[in-house]
Amino acid sequence: MTAVAFIGLGVMGAPMAQNLVKAGFDVIGHNRSPARTDTLVASGGRRADSVADAVRDADVIVTMLPDSPDVEAVVLGEGGALETARHGALLVDASTVRPETSRAVAAAAEARGVRALDAPVSGGEAGAVEGTLSIMVGGDEEVYESALPVLRAMGSTVVHVGPAGAGQTVKAANQLIVAGTIELVSEALVFLDSHGVDLGAAVSVLAGGLAGNAVLQRKAPAMLARDFTPGFRIDLHHKDLGIVLAAVREAGVALPLGTHVAGLVASLRAQGGGSLDHSALLLQVESLSGRDNELRSRPV
Amino acid sequence: MTAVAFIGLGVMGAPMAQNLVKAGFDVIGHNRSPARTDTLVASGGRRADSVADAVRDADVIVTMLPDSPDVEAVVLGEGGALETARHGALLVDASTVRPETSRAVAAAAEARGVRALDAPVSGGEAGAVEGTLSIMVGGDEEVYESALPVLRAMGSTVVHVGPAGAGQTVKAANQLIVAGTIELVSEALVFLDSHGVDLGAAVSVLAGGLAGNAVLQRKAPAMLARDFTPGFRIDLHHKDLGIVLAAVREAGVALPLGTHVAGLVASLRAQGGGSLDHSALLLQVESLSGRDNELRSRPV
Amino acid sequence: MTAVAFIGLGVMGAPMAQNLVKAGFDVIGHNRSPARTDTLVASGGRRADSVADAVRDADVIVTMLPDSPDVEAVVLGEGGALETARHGALLVDASTVRPETSRAVAAAAEARGVRALDAPVSGGEAGAVEGTLSIMVGGDEEVYESALPVLRAMGSTVVHVGPAGAGQTVKAANQLIVAGTIELVSEALVFLDSHGVDLGAAVSVLAGGLAGNAVLQRKAPAMLARDFTPGFRIDLHHKDLGIVLAAVREAGVALPLGTHVAGLVASLRAQGGGSLDHSALLLQVESLSGRDNELRSRPV
Amino acid sequence: MTAVAFIGLGVMGAPMAQNLVKAGFDVIGHNRSPARTDTLVASGGRRADSVADAVRDADVIVTMLPDSPDVEAVVLGEGGALETARHGALLVDASTVRPETSRAVAAAAEARGVRALDAPVSGGEAGAVEGTLSIMVGGDEEVYESALPVLRAMGSTVVHVGPAGAGQTVKAANQLIVAGTIELVSEALVFLDSHGVDLGAAVSVLAGGLAGNAVLQRKAPAMLARDFTPGFRIDLHHKDLGIVLAAVREAGVALPLGTHVAGLVASLRAQGGGSLDHSALLLQVESLSGRDNELRSRPV
Repeated sequence: MTAVAFIGLGVMGAPMAQNLVKAGFDVIGHNRSPARTDTLVASGGRRADSVADAVRDADVIVTMLPDSPDVEAVVLGEGGALETARHGALLVDASTVRPETSRAVAAAAEARGVRALDAPVSGGEAGAVEGTLSIMVGGDEEVYESALPVLRAMGSTVVHVGPAGAGQTVKAANQLIVAGTIELVSEALVFLDSHGVDLGAAVSVLAGGLAGNAVLQRKAPAMLARDFTPGFRIDLHHKDLGIVLAAVREAGVALPLGTHVAGLVASLRAQGGGSLDHSALLLQVESLSGRDNELRSRPV
Repeated sequence: MTAVAFIGLGVMGAPMAQNLVKAGFDVIGHNRSPARTDTLVASGGRRADSVADAVRDADVIVTMLPDSPDVEAVVLGEGGALETARHGALLVDASTVRPETSRAVAAAAEARGVRALDAPVSGGEAGAVEGTLSIMVGGDEEVYESALPVLRAMGSTVVHVGPAGAGQTVKAANQLIVAGTIELVSEALVFLDSHGVDLGAAVSVLAGGLAGNAVLQRKAPAMLARDFTPGFRIDLHHKDLGIVLAAVREAGVALPLGTHVAGLVASLRAQGGGSLDHSALLLQVESLSGRDNELRSRPV
Repeated sequence: MTAVAFIGLGVMGAPMAQNLVKAGFDVIGHNRSPARTDTLVASGGRRADSVADAVRDADVIVTMLPDSPDVEAVVLGEGGALETARHGALLVDASTVRPETSRAVAAAAEARGVRALDAPVSGGEAGAVEGTLSIMVGGDEEVYESALPVLRAMGSTVVHVGPAGAGQTVKAANQLIVAGTIELVSEALVFLDSHGVDLGAAVSVLAGGLAGNAVLQRKAPAMLARDFTPGFRIDLHHKDLGIVLAAVREAGVALPLGTHVAGLVASLRAQGGGSLDHSALLLQVESLSGRDNELRSRPV
Repeated sequence: MTAVAFIGLGVMGAPMAQNLVKAGFDVIGHNRSPARTDTLVASGGRRADSVADAVRDADVIVTMLPDSPDVEAVVLGEGGALETARHGALLVDASTVRPETSRAVAAAAEARGVRALDAPVSGGEAGAVEGTLSIMVGGDEEVYESALPVLRAMGSTVVHVGPAGAGQTVKAANQLIVAGTIELVSEALVFLDSHGVDLGAAVSVLAGGLAGNAVLQRKAPAMLARDFTPGFRIDLHHKDLGIVLAAVREAGVALPLGTHVAGLVASLRAQGGGSLDHSALLLQVESLSGRDNELRSRPV
């Protein structure tokens, strides 16, 4: 029975770990605030009181952490995963972090005889619960293949996209396109509304052509109903676009629209929209257009 | 047998008129350069030597013209369609023009006892040939319903989106989203390529999630193969975005990303890309990022 | 004694006409709302009840009108200035309009034997009153020279910048740089304030180096005092930037920052800031940054 | 006689150190590549072989280093200035670095009993040679006053702008306005040229009004002469705008035009313009507008 250490049992990590239990893995979980391990234990997993205890005997180590500094501390830091991991263990970092963090993790892992992959996910809490996440994997091809049983227990679309860091780069590109598309759809809706168009009919015809996209299909109904319950919070999307901007600058490429939309997300957050769903970019377009909406009346 | 006058037998108009013939309408076509009427006649339609001759006995008049001034001349001008049309005739303008042009046509038509719709299409030459266009219709509900037999002979998705001008507004929103999405996908591809990612694998995983869109599905393969044969030319998209900018300014709304992408399309055109497919926005992102590509070596 | 017809006695036109009286010209003024001619008459000018009456015996015709359609009506329209003007008269259009309007006026004037210049001004109401306007003149060199006595009665900086329309183009460029500079200074102030910098000290050091500009010198004190009394209203700057955008599109050039700032001005106007001084772009930067300010609490 | 340690004798640092010698200070210089200390010694200064040797007996320590990591290494690092500096010494960091680096230096200095100021400069090599730099100073008021003799030996405009880090913030704002103004002037020039305007005449009239700025006065003549010899290189301006972007993101403010121009500078650099003067933004506007210029034909 393959032993899996799972570090980071948050909104995403907890159901991902439970899906590993369901798939027959021996899962030992650790979380900074220990209460979060209870549901894992109730589902048949085990609890570890420290990162070291969790990873000591693990065949596979999965990390699902908030940001680059967390991964650096938990994986690379003193008492971290790499210090204790068995020679030959497999480290799967499912966190969304900077590509260069993933490359640093891969290099440090190799130096310790640990095989590492970056494997950020998309699909949200629902995808984590249902095991239908998309997983973008960077690292060596053969390591990727050896990790497939673990990855397929958590996601339904699992794709190897390149060397170490490539998973993070694709995740960054994903977040860039998603933010840009939400903004484009928001601008289109405000424009259509200002001309007295039937928005429901417009969305249905737009969704069927070359303008069609997943935001129109999945997000527009809630946007028209003015429901901005997250879903995926502006705060998190802002953090992810920070990764994009840093990686863009590092690569020396010019992404005019991507940079622009990152600024719009930052502005929405500065105006107090951080805890709303990212589709609340609609509120900002309304505000910029002088149209009454919740954003302008919302306390900051 | 319903008599249909069809004015404007270009790349789009000619196959649309032929589909009306196939559907059993008595079609009499007119085009400024008369050679373009030959294929219609060969398919069983008739030829008229002037707009007046075409519309005199028509139950329905369909216009498919390049731009707002053409519609103003052919419909509203001296010797134009409204001067000669029968009382009670139905005017369907399938051209992509400014919403205010469509509203002016609707008002002038009403004054002459003619019922008018704006009905711009999307789906390109292939959609026109196969009769699978999306048609966005503005005008009175009952006029729309009376026009359905004609509209359904030309398109497979026919949606009534609001009052006069609303069809044009939805078409404008469509062109805004399409240009913005091509730009976002182009920026993502350059970004991914700069980080050494496998582009084919990345496109497949991006297409399956919230970043998924019709550009990734239909356009990205040709973009990766560096095939920029139109399709839909930058020159035409530039013209359509001019309609968007004018309608945005008229409505007093703020569309930051839409305005930005209109500038990028204008710049690509200024650099000599006007006759390329609109997916050639990729070349401009490459040029801005200092990456070798056809645009930089192309004579302007 | 040179007879000058002056059409358009608004906030700018009235003092300009009075300065012509002071300089010894025989000025006959006309304004759509006749009450505006009273101060001219009190200063020693004469009143005309129609454009035709004003221009019939004039050696020089000066027009100072709000926008392109006004110039087209008053100069080119039925009963307009060109219909009545004497052969050999000199037409000086001081309005800020589209370069192509000025070129159309120049062509129509030439056909009637009238010599025409476009001569838009900058310097505001104060400059108009004090006769210290900057005047940017387009048209033939020798016509320009013959107009110098009239132009120098109204402005202290009078420059010939090129053929017909060139004056308007330079005025458009002026408005582009002014709006962009106000926005840059506003962004710098919000940035500095967010980091706890002494704004007065910062402005003084910034004004002395390569970042120095007339906005820092003349506008920043009122901005820091939060006084947005016009001066030059956002509504007017928005109109002028519309001229810039049209001329940019006509010329097929790419002005990324200029286009961007035009969108920001349009947005400020949409949010209800149209009657504030253009330095109120500061309020919009504050709003976008989530900082309390008058704009967010202002009724729209 | 006040002993001044000067670390970093580059293009800016060397003449600044010589001006301190001229003003009567006992200057002991250190530079990573020791050959750079020769001119200082020839001018009457002394040479130190290490940072520690330079600062050991110094009353004042001036650092003039390329970027934040250099300051962190030389000041905060092992064997760095703070390790060896006398209790009560004054540290003046004239480097352009991130405000948070300056705040970290100030905190570390205080912990060691050293008084610290951030004092970045503007005015370029000419200003450094002539002692006419503008110096923007952050730190305690009384420390600032005690540093004035040293600062006034290097610059002619010396302003205290706020607490630790404020000098860097003002320098960042300076670089933001400078880049934005160069871009606005470049866009205006391309626009004017496309309409056939006399550029020299236009620049003279624009420089005299509210559009007037130091770029029009000092840079436009070389731009019109197409001389892009640095001056201040795009590579350095790109680095400085990176500081701006990081500080903007840290402060949670929205600077739409500033962010946009940072992207344009990054793009010019990506296209191979890094070693040109920053006024070469003109070449990029020309390239975006499809106008022939050196940038398009320049090997990247």
